[in-house]
Amino acid sequence: MTRTDTPPFAWDRVVSARGQRMNSSVIREMLKITQRPDVISFAGGLPAPELFPIEAVRQAASTVLDRYGPAALQYSTTEGHLPLREWLAARASITPQHVQIMTGSQQSLDLLGKMLINEGDVVLVEAPTYLGALQSFQPYGPQYVQVPTDDHGIDVDALETLLHTTRAKLLYAVPNFQNPTGRTLSLERRQQLVELTARHGIVLVEDDPYGALRFTGEALPSLYTLGLERAGHPDHNHVVYSSSFSKVLVPGLRDAWVQAARPLIHKLVQAKQGADLHTPTFNQMIVAELVEDVMPAQIERVRQAYGERAGQMVQSMQRHFPAGVQYTTPQGGMFLWVTLPEQIDTAPLLQQAVARGVAFVPGAPFFALGGGHNTMRLSYSSATPEQIERGIAALGETIRSALD
Amino acid sequence: MTRTDTPPFAWDRVVSARGQRMNSSVIREMLKITQRPDVISFAGGLPAPELFPIEAVRQAASTVLDRYGPAALQYSTTEGHLPLREWLAARASITPQHVQIMTGSQQSLDLLGKMLINEGDVVLVEAPTYLGALQSFQPYGPQYVQVPTDDHGIDVDALETLLHTTRAKLLYAVPNFQNPTGRTLSLERRQQLVELTARHGIVLVEDDPYGALRFTGEALPSLYTLGLERAGHPDHNHVVYSSSFSKVLVPGLRDAWVQAARPLIHKLVQAKQGADLHTPTFNQMIVAELVEDVMPAQIERVRQAYGERAGQMVQSMQRHFPAGVQYTTPQGGMFLWVTLPEQIDTAPLLQQAVARGVAFVPGAPFFALGGGHNTMRLSYSSATPEQIERGIAALGETIRSALD
Repeated sequence: MTRTDTPPFAWDRVVSARGQRMNSSVIREMLKITQRPDVISFAGGLPAPELFPIEAVRQAASTVLDRYGPAALQYSTTEGHLPLREWLAARASITPQHVQIMTGSQQSLDLLGKMLINEGDVVLVEAPTYLGALQSFQPYGPQYVQVPTDDHGIDVDALETLLHTTRAKLLYAVPNFQNPTGRTLSLERRQQLVELTARHGIVLVEDDPYGALRFTGEALPSLYTLGLERAGHPDHNHVVYSSSFSKVLVPGLRDAWVQAARPLIHKLVQAKQGADLHTPTFNQMIVAELVEDVMPAQIERVRQAYGERAGQMVQSMQRHFPAGVQYTTPQGGMFLWVTLPEQIDTAPLLQQAVARGVAFVPGAPFFALGGGHNTMRLSYSSATPEQIERGIAALGETIRSALD
Repeated sequence: MTRTDTPPFAWDRVVSARGQRMNSSVIREMLKITQRPDVISFAGGLPAPELFPIEAVRQAASTVLDRYGPAALQYSTTEGHLPLREWLAARASITPQHVQIMTGSQQSLDLLGKMLINEGDVVLVEAPTYLGALQSFQPYGPQYVQVPTDDHGIDVDALETLLHTTRAKLLYAVPNFQNPTGRTLSLERRQQLVELTARHGIVLVEDDPYGALRFTGEALPSLYTLGLERAGHPDHNHVVYSSSFSKVLVPGLRDAWVQAARPLIHKLVQAKQGADLHTPTFNQMIVAELVEDVMPAQIERVRQAYGERAGQMVQSMQRHFPAGVQYTTPQGGMFLWVTLPEQIDTAPLLQQAVARGVAFVPGAPFFALGGGHNTMRLSYSSATPEQIERGIAALGETIRSALD
């Protein structure tokens, strides 16, 4: 049989309904056009690579091969490397049985979606919210309801009203230095959010990849901690905590974790068995080797660098942005959020900015149900102060010329 | 509010229908009782750890940090490390665009299930089949139909009959040294299987983790290669090939891949974005560093060891098993399959075997729709010849005493 006899296999016909709901990340597609070497990019969300503790990783890799021998390269348990789970558990006053190691927090979101979301289930998300969460949940067919936010994060009063009209199963929130806005949920609202979701029997998923990267202001308790105080026991806590080593060590090892009540952890273990058996043994051991002696100094270094860069970006915006442009002033993390006058659409603006040598991410894709046409996300984490000044100046010019 | 005020959160109530379909691996639970140090275990399916190329991995880890610097620890593309995809593509006479790197072949199966299986879709599986595939597919709600097998693998005539009465979407097969039986699909049947599934528009998923580990007989072309010859172009090939570095290098790095037509790869990239963003950068680079200079000798070493161990197990079975017990003689891989007289149920037999100091896996869980109560899987990959002789002697006694 020759190639001319064989029609192409009709892949469209066999893709599941779930598969048809999936799309490529809009941002990922957009990043391709912004990756010209002559463009200063605030579009990505990459941790600063020049700060990576390369020598410490090299040393840790060698140490775990000495200490564990072939076990460092063998299959291991789905739950994860026990010393790492013990270390995480001790920090949160829970037991290792409440901790599941994951292959990046993207997997945490995927498996939570898989385990919790039936087609049509109402999932509450911030407006705007983390795009990666929408992408993980999407195949499971959620019905999103957007919760309004302001400078202090989720508008809890608006949420309370919503809860009287919608039967939600899950609320997804990024309380610290949110991606994309850089905003932080206030303490009072944290308490209200925990109480409100507990009373309504709603699973509260707290995504906290940036919490350790606070450069100004005081650390606030996690929703998980507040939930634990309220419930009295980790198995009664309705808050599910997701975090990762990607922003506080390195992302390329893909090590993350979930803290939750054991009945949920038990289901996540089953989901993970079918999803990838376990997170790479070697990588978990390397991370466990680094958490005590390397991570604290690494966090300090990253905090200081990101604090300087965020400060520079805010200063540059004050200098170069026209009146009527608003922006958040983050207390930590990697992002800030810019709101332009209503008449400007940031999607076409991106082309003009790239022509002037600067890139950002338009804000609209971060809204599950639309909105935010006049917003943009800027990342300062992997640009130098000098690049930030030049890039923001160019962006200011772009905005001015669009306003004219 | 104190702990007595707070009822436990009703996790059962919020678990999705999909989540309720999931279960822990029966084998995984069983392995716990067989992991006593005084028990010789043929139950697990672990590659021999004493053969792992530890020093080569250490060196490769250091080399990639030198060569790529922070990029080895940074986020990377969902498709995977290009040099690794190029190397794999060249071997299969396809392009890197037909290759997707995965976090273990368990992820390949999960994402194929996610992308292809709608609830109620008919999925054809061998009887018996790889349990991990059932676990990956299960949450997506397939309706399994079992295809009979004999010593030469899938009974293609029986399959043809089945295809007239069932509307199947996907057939899952392990043609080389199948897990659990150790059987190999003959060349003639490979050709028939490829032709038959192509004509019926059925996706043929070929899982081939052990193919390189042949210790006797001649290598046979993969279903993927036959599908490619038939179709004339990789984008028209209806065979999807899944394999992994777990058995030919080390499992603890979790590096695997899928070869398929680009329309399917395109969907798998989307699925993987939501599932874990990408396979750990560092691990992919380490594997790419090892495939040329270390892997060929490693495969040779593993083949020789497994060949000796399989030979020893067959000899010991000839010596110690009573008449009426049948077993397969594998030409490669890690497993063989034992069929006892009908009146014996291997599930209760396991307890008696463990009491005599030897463990196996009862065969029933490998049948998607039941059967095989009198079968068992034995793995010889990680036992010494001396342990094999002692363990098989003890198992022979156990069988004899059950037959009495």
